[in-house]
Amino acid sequence: MTLPDRAAIEAMDAQDPLRHLRDAFILSPDEVYLDGNSLGVPTRAAQEELLRAARDEWGGELIRSWNGAGWFDLPIELGNRIGRLIGAAPGQVVVADTTSVNIYKALHAAMGLRPGRKTIVAESGSFPTDLYIAEGVVSTLPGAQLRLEGVDGATIEEMLDADVAAVLVNHVNYKTGELRDMAALTARIHAAGAVAVWDLCHSAGALPVELDAAGADFAVGCTYKYLNGGPGSPAFVYVARRHLGQARQPLSGWWGHARPFAFETGYEGDPGIRRFQCGTQPILSMRALKGALAIWDGVDMALLRAKSLALTDLFIRLVEARCAGLGLELESPRDGARRGSQVAWRHDHAWPVMQALIARGVIGDFRAPSTLRFGFAPLYLRHVDVLHAVEALEDVLRSESWRDPRFAMRAAVT
Amino acid sequence: MTLPDRAAIEAMDAQDPLRHLRDAFILSPDEVYLDGNSLGVPTRAAQEELLRAARDEWGGELIRSWNGAGWFDLPIELGNRIGRLIGAAPGQVVVADTTSVNIYKALHAAMGLRPGRKTIVAESGSFPTDLYIAEGVVSTLPGAQLRLEGVDGATIEEMLDADVAAVLVNHVNYKTGELRDMAALTARIHAAGAVAVWDLCHSAGALPVELDAAGADFAVGCTYKYLNGGPGSPAFVYVARRHLGQARQPLSGWWGHARPFAFETGYEGDPGIRRFQCGTQPILSMRALKGALAIWDGVDMALLRAKSLALTDLFIRLVEARCAGLGLELESPRDGARRGSQVAWRHDHAWPVMQALIARGVIGDFRAPSTLRFGFAPLYLRHVDVLHAVEALEDVLRSESWRDPRFAMRAAVT
Repeated sequence: MTLPDRAAIEAMDAQDPLRHLRDAFILSPDEVYLDGNSLGVPTRAAQEELLRAARDEWGGELIRSWNGAGWFDLPIELGNRIGRLIGAAPGQVVVADTTSVNIYKALHAAMGLRPGRKTIVAESGSFPTDLYIAEGVVSTLPGAQLRLEGVDGATIEEMLDADVAAVLVNHVNYKTGELRDMAALTARIHAAGAVAVWDLCHSAGALPVELDAAGADFAVGCTYKYLNGGPGSPAFVYVARRHLGQARQPLSGWWGHARPFAFETGYEGDPGIRRFQCGTQPILSMRALKGALAIWDGVDMALLRAKSLALTDLFIRLVEARCAGLGLELESPRDGARRGSQVAWRHDHAWPVMQALIARGVIGDFRAPSTLRFGFAPLYLRHVDVLHAVEALEDVLRSESWRDPRFAMRAAVT
Repeated sequence: MTLPDRAAIEAMDAQDPLRHLRDAFILSPDEVYLDGNSLGVPTRAAQEELLRAARDEWGGELIRSWNGAGWFDLPIELGNRIGRLIGAAPGQVVVADTTSVNIYKALHAAMGLRPGRKTIVAESGSFPTDLYIAEGVVSTLPGAQLRLEGVDGATIEEMLDADVAAVLVNHVNYKTGELRDMAALTARIHAAGAVAVWDLCHSAGALPVELDAAGADFAVGCTYKYLNGGPGSPAFVYVARRHLGQARQPLSGWWGHARPFAFETGYEGDPGIRRFQCGTQPILSMRALKGALAIWDGVDMALLRAKSLALTDLFIRLVEARCAGLGLELESPRDGARRGSQVAWRHDHAWPVMQALIARGVIGDFRAPSTLRFGFAPLYLRHVDVLHAVEALEDVLRSESWRDPRFAMRAAVT
């Protein structure tokens, strides 16, 4: 297959059925933003919704907005909206707290559904907070243990024995972008009598997810990456309908009570998904997320996936053609069917190379120890952005401009 | 003592050393807002800070703002700012998550400091989420139990036996406004070998709090009441310096790790207060809070307390004089030394009476089953506002305008 030239790449954009969505985002014309897998770009609607909530509802109506502006029901309303994007029928998703806190809830609930079993299985290559939280859960359950794929066993499938209660697994690996087959792995987990907890942080909004169809038990995810909810916007948690009523979680705050405004002394959890709420949510951040989610109305997830694969395929092909011999090694699956919406390259000098790229307006990020990570958000990126990024990467590597000492300085957040 | 007339009340405002602060708030000239103990009024600075974070930092700098705009350090920066208001030296307070989640962290940590003991003591009249979360903590600790003042014993002091590990107590009661003597009760709790966890939701920003001086072990509180951070703005948690390093909490997310961006597989908690963080925080809501906290620079907490007591004293005296025989019964302490910054009255028809008041522009709230609750935020309320509120209350009760059927309708959030 011949490498497309600029004209061919521009033609891809002209034929892109999602190209009109770019106008809804606030994007700098001088930059190519390939970090939407870490912090998504705001839409105009998100900014307007936030402003309205802050000025008119908080500033104008004050306490009355809990009812009048629907603040109290936002977690459920937004949960159902996200549910549509992750294949969850209504009433199974709530937006609340952080991914870490929701993993804690989901793992506790999962362990409670398998009371005779004591093991949690997770991936050594997991996003770290998943492991840290699993350690926290284990610390509160006498006899419980955490076993890691890649440390205590070669694959999750091999590790599934009769003591495994829950498997916590990332749908898309945060570093390599590798995509798991959710339906197949969930079936294996169920066959072993265990419960599947899926982390969707790198797949929600990036590709079709089918939680109900795959038989997933629990899922968690953030909303500030491909869902563009804003920095630290609240996370979500999914509990399959068949587990609602049985599933218990110990963060039993008042928003999870069956009658929160009765101010009763004893806790009685809501029988539905509200039980996975805990305390009062950050409404301003929630409202930016509400605005951000509006763009998904009518987006065909199959088209989204096709565009995502076109972007990442193009990126891999162009980099391999133009940056051959410049020290890059592909860390992501070459096979699109096994890849999420990001591409990672290993490089001996990944940190300064990324800083030099950012200085040129191509924004990706670095993951320790040696990964250059590029995310491709299909709603707002163009194929010409991919070309531009590759040209910049080639130039940074060929010119060795990354050797400038200012690119060696490490920041606190990477 | 004779009852002050309007001229005398206006003179109180003219002499109020905090009167200039009112101009910093966005207040409707047609309303008297007595619900700042539930949702505080926004300052202009809070709105501007939020706008700047959303437009310039999220919209303009995107991912770079984690370092460039100091997003990552906000929890510590804001924690230290709040620390000054609650008598905590720097490095002991972090702003993160919700009050409920922070109670969970604090109670777990407290129980961990007293490993041989199994009992948590709390108040049956506590804000309910404190009890619900205590139940959740107990559910994860084999053999642990929750005992309630008012149910299992008459007073906390009487209940302090050798099995009590932690006492969770509200500094100011959310309904009656009753204020506990923090130093005296903490000393009693320590004498019994237990640990004190203080809930400051109704005292932080309402009166001087002296956590360090009182020897408190842990404290939690929200920031959306007297601290005016905005709806659901993140909560805070205090851990006394002597416990940092020993105190463990199971919500061990990546923001609490000693090296969050090293992406290590195993959890190693930060040795300081950062360990009480968990996951990524809602930055937009945090930034509104940052703007809100600016107003406290230079506020003398003794003057704040004096004004608060003047407002609540005036309210009690005027209501008792003008509404005598109209069915109100004072639920708050008459003695100012035992009262926070709010006043509660019992009334047989508390719900419709409050709705009728709100319809007239006097905004208080209702707490089940029969309480009219009025909060007095000293930064923005005037003495004439108190007079106006009492006149409205008298008129609603005397005219029985609350009998209008539209005031009987219950809303979801009260």
